[in-house]
Amino acid sequence: MRLANWPRARLRLGMVGGGLGGNIGAAHRTAALMDGRWDLVAGALSRDPRRGAESARAWQIAPDRSYPNAAEMAEAEAGRNDGIQAVAICTPNADHHPSAMAFLKAGIHVICDKPLTTSVALAEELVRTAKDQGLIFAVTHTYSGYPMVRAARRMIAAGQIGEVRSVSVEYLSQYHTAGSEGWQNDPARNGPLGAVAGTGTHAHHLAEFITGRRVTELSADLASLGPGNRLDDHATMHLRFDNGARGCLWNSTIAPGNQNGLSIRVHGSTGGLSWHQERPEELAYTPFGGATRLLYRNGAEVAAGAFELSRVPAGHPEGYLEAFANLYSEIAEAVTARLDGSADPEVAFPTVEDGLRGVRFMFAALSSARNESRFENL
Amino acid sequence: MRLANWPRARLRLGMVGGGLGGNIGAAHRTAALMDGRWDLVAGALSRDPRRGAESARAWQIAPDRSYPNAAEMAEAEAGRNDGIQAVAICTPNADHHPSAMAFLKAGIHVICDKPLTTSVALAEELVRTAKDQGLIFAVTHTYSGYPMVRAARRMIAAGQIGEVRSVSVEYLSQYHTAGSEGWQNDPARNGPLGAVAGTGTHAHHLAEFITGRRVTELSADLASLGPGNRLDDHATMHLRFDNGARGCLWNSTIAPGNQNGLSIRVHGSTGGLSWHQERPEELAYTPFGGATRLLYRNGAEVAAGAFELSRVPAGHPEGYLEAFANLYSEIAEAVTARLDGSADPEVAFPTVEDGLRGVRFMFAALSSARNESRFENL
Amino acid sequence: MRLANWPRARLRLGMVGGGLGGNIGAAHRTAALMDGRWDLVAGALSRDPRRGAESARAWQIAPDRSYPNAAEMAEAEAGRNDGIQAVAICTPNADHHPSAMAFLKAGIHVICDKPLTTSVALAEELVRTAKDQGLIFAVTHTYSGYPMVRAARRMIAAGQIGEVRSVSVEYLSQYHTAGSEGWQNDPARNGPLGAVAGTGTHAHHLAEFITGRRVTELSADLASLGPGNRLDDHATMHLRFDNGARGCLWNSTIAPGNQNGLSIRVHGSTGGLSWHQERPEELAYTPFGGATRLLYRNGAEVAAGAFELSRVPAGHPEGYLEAFANLYSEIAEAVTARLDGSADPEVAFPTVEDGLRGVRFMFAALSSARNESRFENL
Amino acid sequence: MRLANWPRARLRLGMVGGGLGGNIGAAHRTAALMDGRWDLVAGALSRDPRRGAESARAWQIAPDRSYPNAAEMAEAEAGRNDGIQAVAICTPNADHHPSAMAFLKAGIHVICDKPLTTSVALAEELVRTAKDQGLIFAVTHTYSGYPMVRAARRMIAAGQIGEVRSVSVEYLSQYHTAGSEGWQNDPARNGPLGAVAGTGTHAHHLAEFITGRRVTELSADLASLGPGNRLDDHATMHLRFDNGARGCLWNSTIAPGNQNGLSIRVHGSTGGLSWHQERPEELAYTPFGGATRLLYRNGAEVAAGAFELSRVPAGHPEGYLEAFANLYSEIAEAVTARLDGSADPEVAFPTVEDGLRGVRFMFAALSSARNESRFENL
Repeated sequence: MRLANWPRARLRLGMVGGGLGGNIGAAHRTAALMDGRWDLVAGALSRDPRRGAESARAWQIAPDRSYPNAAEMAEAEAGRNDGIQAVAICTPNADHHPSAMAFLKAGIHVICDKPLTTSVALAEELVRTAKDQGLIFAVTHTYSGYPMVRAARRMIAAGQIGEVRSVSVEYLSQYHTAGSEGWQNDPARNGPLGAVAGTGTHAHHLAEFITGRRVTELSADLASLGPGNRLDDHATMHLRFDNGARGCLWNSTIAPGNQNGLSIRVHGSTGGLSWHQERPEELAYTPFGGATRLLYRNGAEVAAGAFELSRVPAGHPEGYLEAFANLYSEIAEAVTARLDGSADPEVAFPTVEDGLRGVRFMFAALSSARNESRFENL
Repeated sequence: MRLANWPRARLRLGMVGGGLGGNIGAAHRTAALMDGRWDLVAGALSRDPRRGAESARAWQIAPDRSYPNAAEMAEAEAGRNDGIQAVAICTPNADHHPSAMAFLKAGIHVICDKPLTTSVALAEELVRTAKDQGLIFAVTHTYSGYPMVRAARRMIAAGQIGEVRSVSVEYLSQYHTAGSEGWQNDPARNGPLGAVAGTGTHAHHLAEFITGRRVTELSADLASLGPGNRLDDHATMHLRFDNGARGCLWNSTIAPGNQNGLSIRVHGSTGGLSWHQERPEELAYTPFGGATRLLYRNGAEVAAGAFELSRVPAGHPEGYLEAFANLYSEIAEAVTARLDGSADPEVAFPTVEDGLRGVRFMFAALSSARNESRFENL
Repeated sequence: MRLANWPRARLRLGMVGGGLGGNIGAAHRTAALMDGRWDLVAGALSRDPRRGAESARAWQIAPDRSYPNAAEMAEAEAGRNDGIQAVAICTPNADHHPSAMAFLKAGIHVICDKPLTTSVALAEELVRTAKDQGLIFAVTHTYSGYPMVRAARRMIAAGQIGEVRSVSVEYLSQYHTAGSEGWQNDPARNGPLGAVAGTGTHAHHLAEFITGRRVTELSADLASLGPGNRLDDHATMHLRFDNGARGCLWNSTIAPGNQNGLSIRVHGSTGGLSWHQERPEELAYTPFGGATRLLYRNGAEVAAGAFELSRVPAGHPEGYLEAFANLYSEIAEAVTARLDGSADPEVAFPTVEDGLRGVRFMFAALSSARNESRFENL
Repeated sequence: MRLANWPRARLRLGMVGGGLGGNIGAAHRTAALMDGRWDLVAGALSRDPRRGAESARAWQIAPDRSYPNAAEMAEAEAGRNDGIQAVAICTPNADHHPSAMAFLKAGIHVICDKPLTTSVALAEELVRTAKDQGLIFAVTHTYSGYPMVRAARRMIAAGQIGEVRSVSVEYLSQYHTAGSEGWQNDPARNGPLGAVAGTGTHAHHLAEFITGRRVTELSADLASLGPGNRLDDHATMHLRFDNGARGCLWNSTIAPGNQNGLSIRVHGSTGGLSWHQERPEELAYTPFGGATRLLYRNGAEVAAGAFELSRVPAGHPEGYLEAFANLYSEIAEAVTARLDGSADPEVAFPTVEDGLRGVRFMFAALSSARNESRFENL
C-alpha cells in the first residue's frame, strides 16, 4: 500500500474542458488530487466563459488562471515561473489535437482523454511532437489503473496462463438505447466513430494492455440501431493478435441492464483469466486442470504488482477513482523524473503511442465495416 | 408443476449408440424415463458387440432386442407388435443420417443428437423423408428444455424487451485445451467442423429459439489453436438476423475455467435479458430505465411457461437432466398425438428443421472462414 | 458418474401420503425412480379416498394396492409375495410415528420425512423398534444427498480445514411472510414447533452431517412474527459442538426474497468452506493464507466422493431431484444388502438416529426459548 | 453527484495517531481530503517521536505542528489563530477518551474511531462533554457512508419493506485465525472485548443505522478460539429490537476466506433488503411477492439519497474511501454550520451518541456471555 504514504513533491496541473455540469472533469480532479501529488491551479474549463469562471471558482483556481481557451492558457502558463507542469485535456474528441499541440509546443506535459484524435494523421503528429519535445504524453485509458488489471498483466507476462490463445473483450452500456444526443452524436465533434471511439477504444486498449500482445488485424461489423443514432452504437469484431491468438470484441451502447460493462477473458495454453470492471477488485484465475481461484487486491496468491497501486487492505473496496488516481500518481512519477532529468521510472500508464494505436483501431474497424467486414491491418 | 403429475400412456423407446462408457446415452435414458412417459426396450448401443450387450443388460433391455446396428434394429423392431415407437440416435455425427433414414423408412419416429448430419444435402434428405413419412423428428438441442429459456422466449414473444436489436451468444469449454482425441478429432466421423458442430450449433439454436428470429447471414473466423486439434476449437462470428438485429457468437473448446459455458444475452429496444446455462434457474431481466430483476423458475414475475415444465418448487434447483426430460416429455406428447391421429400438441422441442438450420449454420461458418470472413447467407 | 450405469435389481416401494396436489410425493417418486433402483407399486396416498385413488391411477399403481391408510397397507403388503420391500412416509409430521410403527412391525424397511416425530419419546421408540426389527430406517434430509455436500464432508473429515471452530447455518424462506395455513400452522398436526421443525431440523442435520461434529448444547430465541402464525416462524440459536466449536443457526420463514435458502459456512483452524443450496454444484473452499477456490461437482480439485453420486459431467447442472435420488439409490444399496444378508454398504444417507437427533434439537430449542434462551443440552 | 462539485470553504484538520506504518491514518487522510473540504495541518501521529516526525513530513504537516501527544497538541492548536477546527483520533481504543477530552476541553470538534471508549462511564462523559461544549463529535462507523447503505435506510424509513421484523448482520474476517498480536490482543490497550469491539460494534451500528430501530436486549455467546487469542474472536448474538423485531449478529475474526465481510439482511412485512460491504454498490431489494431487484448507486429505482453522496456515474465503482469521504464531507458541513452559527444541516454521520450505544452494546454482550447468554438490556 505504497501510494498513500508516498513522500511527494507536488506538481502543478491545469485542465482543459471538464467544467461543472459534466462528470469527467470532476473525476480527473478527484483522481489527480487523491494521492497528494498534484495541485490543480489553472484551467480553460468550458467554452462557455461564465461556466468556465464558475467552475474555476468552485475548484479554487485563481481567476487570472481561468482562461477562455487552450491556446491562451498554454501561452500564459508557459510564461509564468509557477506555470503548470502538465495539463489534462478532457474536451470533446475533435478538440484533443489542437489543445494538445498548443501545450506540447509550449513545453508542457500532456494528459489527454481518449480517443486521442479523430484521424490517424493527427494522432501521428502528436506522437512525433511529444517525442521531439521530450515531453510526457499520457492517455487516460483509466481501466488500466485497476490493481487487478495490473495483476492480470503481470500474471500473463510471467507465463501463468501459458501462451495467450484467445482474448474476448466487451464493453456494454445502455446510454444510447433510446438514442443519443449532444456532441457524442455529432460526427463533426466526435469524429466518424461512435461507440467504437467512446468505449471500444478502451476495450481494445485493455486487451493489449493485459495480454502484452498487439491486435494485428480485425474484421468489424458496425451498426446504428438506436433511434436517431448517427454513429455506430453496436460493433462486433474478430481480432487477430501478433502471436497468432484470436479474439472477439463486442461493443454496445444500446444494451439495457449494462451500466459500464467492460470485461475481459483471456485463455492461454495453461490457464485462463477473467475480469469485470464493475467488480474490479476480483480476478478469476484458473490454472488448466485446477479449480478457479478468486484473487483480490492485496489478497492471497496475487502477484506483487497489485500491492503497490493500493491504499487500503483487501476487503475495503477500491474503485474507479482509485484506478484513475493510480494513473495520475504514475504520471506524476514520470513527470517528476523528466523535470529532474532522472531516468524514466518503471510505470505503466498508457501513452500517446497507445492513443495512436486506439485511433488506428477505430479506423481499421470503420474500413472493415465499410468493406463487408474484410480483415484490415492496424 | 404439471410434469410429474401427468397422466400418461407409456411409449416404447429404442436407442442407437450411447452405451456404457460414455455420458450421453445415460443422460438420454435418465431424461427419457424421468417423467414416466417412456420405457427403454431396445437398442443398438455400441459398435462393439460386447459393450452393446453389456449396456443392454445394465439397462434391462431384453437380449433379443439388443442389436448389432441400426439397420437390423429398425427392421426387426418394425416387424414386432410391441416394437419401439421412437428411437433416440446418439452416435457420432456421421452415423446420424444412415441411422435416422433406416428408422424413418421403417415408420419409426426419430429423436436425434446434433449436429444433424455432416452435409446440408443429407440434412435436407432427412427433412423431406420425415415429412413424407409423416413422422416426428426431434433434434436434441437440450438447452431449449430449460424452463427459464422458455420463460425468456415467451417474454420476447410478448414484447417485454421490445424489438430485438442485439444477440450475443457464447459456448465455452476447456475440453480441448490440451488437444482432443477420438471421433471428435476425426473429420471422417465428426464432419469438417469441430467446436462449431459440437457446441456452436447449440449456441446458434439457442439464439434463434429464444429470440424467435433467424440468422440470415454470418461472418466467421475459425481457428485450431490447441495442440493437434485437426478441427476448429475456436470460432468468432458476426451474426445478422432477419429483423435487422446484429449479434455475435463466440465458441471455444480451449477456454480453461469453463465447463459448459453456454450463455446468451439479448438486448431489445425496451429491455434486456441474460441467461447462463450453468445457473439455469436464473434469468436476469432489465426493463430499460428500470432495475435488473432476477427471475427464477416458479418464482415471482415469471411468465406462465416456466411453470409447466417444472417438477419442484422454486429454490429446489432443477438442472440439465430435467431440461432434457422436458424435451422427452414434449416429444412423448407429440408422438402420442401422431399415434392417436389427433392434432399436434403445442410443444416447442427442436425438430429436424432446426437440425437442418444447424447444418446450414455450420457450413456457412466454414465457407465464411475460408473466404476471409466474408458474410455468407444461411 | 457411477449412478446412471449401476447394474441393479429393482426394489418394490410403497408410499404413504404424498398424493397429487402437493409437491412432496411427486418429488419422492421422481427421485426414487431416477436411477432405476425402485418401482412404486403400492400406496396410501391420501386421507381423501378419491384423491388417493386418482393419485394411484396417475402413478400406475394397481387399484388393489391403493390403500385407505398405512395400517391396512402394511398388513396387506406384508402378506403378499410381491409385497413392498420399503415404504416412503410423506404425511404431516404427527402421522409419521404411527405409520412408521405399522411398517416396522410388518417387517418393511422405512423411509420417512422429517421431523421424525412430534416428541422425543416417540422418536426413541422408532429407533428401538427399527433396531429390534433389524430394518433400515432412512430419514430424508434431502440436502445431504448433494454431491458437493458430500465433498465438503469428506474434505473436513480429511482435515482440509483443520479443526472445526465455527459453524454457521441458515435456512431462510418467505413462505409464511403473509401468514401460514393448513397443517403447518396447526400444532395438533405439525407438533409444537413450526419453522424449526420444518426447515430448522434440515439446517441442524446439515451442520452435523458436513462437520462430523455434534451439537451438544444450544440457546434459542423463537418468535412468531407473521400475521396469524401460531408456531415459530423465526429462530436464532447459539450452537456449541462436541469439540468446542461454536456456531449459530438462523431460521426464518418470513424472509422475503428467499426461496429455499439453506446455506452453511464452516471455518476451521486452516481453512473455510461455504455452500448454498440454491447453487448446489458450487463449493467455495479457502485454505487459510490462500485464495478461495470454487469447486464443482466432477470438477478439478474435488475429493473423490463427489464423483460417485453424479450422473452428468461438470457444467451440466444437477439439482434437488438428483440429490434426493442419491439418497434413494444409497437406500436401495442398504436395503438390498439387508435382503441379501450381506454386510451393510458404505453409504451415508441419514437414518432414524439422525431423525431422533433432529427431534432432540427441536425440543432443546423450544425449552431454551421458553427459559430466556438459556443453554439446553441435546 | 453533488459532492465533487461542492463549492467549499476548507477546514483545518488535525490527527492523533494514524502515522505511517498502519493503514488507518492514511485512510482518514485520503478520505478527509478527497472532496477538498479539509486540509490536514497538525498531528500527534505516533507515540514514537521519530515515526511521528517522519509521518508529518510525508504528509506535509509543518514540523512545529507535529506534536508528541494529544494533550500538547490540543493546547497549542487552541492557542493559534489558524489552529485546527477539528481533530481525527485514530489511536488504540484506550487512548480515545483522554485524547477526545483534551480536544473537547480545548473547544475543538472531534472525529473519533470506534469503539468510542473502553467503558460505558467514559463514553457517557464524552457525550456530556461534547454537549456541554456545543461541539460536533463524530464517530467513524465508516460503513454508514456507503450510498447504498443510505439508500437502504431511506427505503426502510419510507416503508418500502413494511414493518421491520428481522435483522441479520454479520462481520467476518480472518485476521486472527492464526492468533492475534499487538494492541488488539492486549486488554489494557484494547479494552475487555476483542472482535466485538473491533468489528462487532460496526455490525451493531449498521443494524440500527439502516433500520432506524434500536436493539433493546441481546443474548451473546463469546469465545476465544484462535491460538493465543486473549480476547473474543467469535461471537453470536440474539438481538431484540424496540419494535419487536428479532435478529442475530455473527462476528468472527477467525473465518478463513473472509476479508472484511460485513453484511446485513433486513426482512419486513412487505419486503426484504440485502447488502454486502465487499460489493457495496449493489443493494438487493425484494418486494414480497415480486422478483428481487438489483439496485446500484446512481442506478434505476434507487431512492434519491444515493445520488447526493456520489462522485461518478453508475457502473464506475465507488468504494471504501469514498464512503469514508462521504462522512468527512458531512462532518465538514456540520462543523461549518457550527462555526457559522447556522442551523445544523441534515446529515447522517454517526455521532458520540452512536459511539455510546456501541459501548453499551459491547458491555451488554460481555455481561450476557458471562451469565450463560441471558438477555441483557442496552
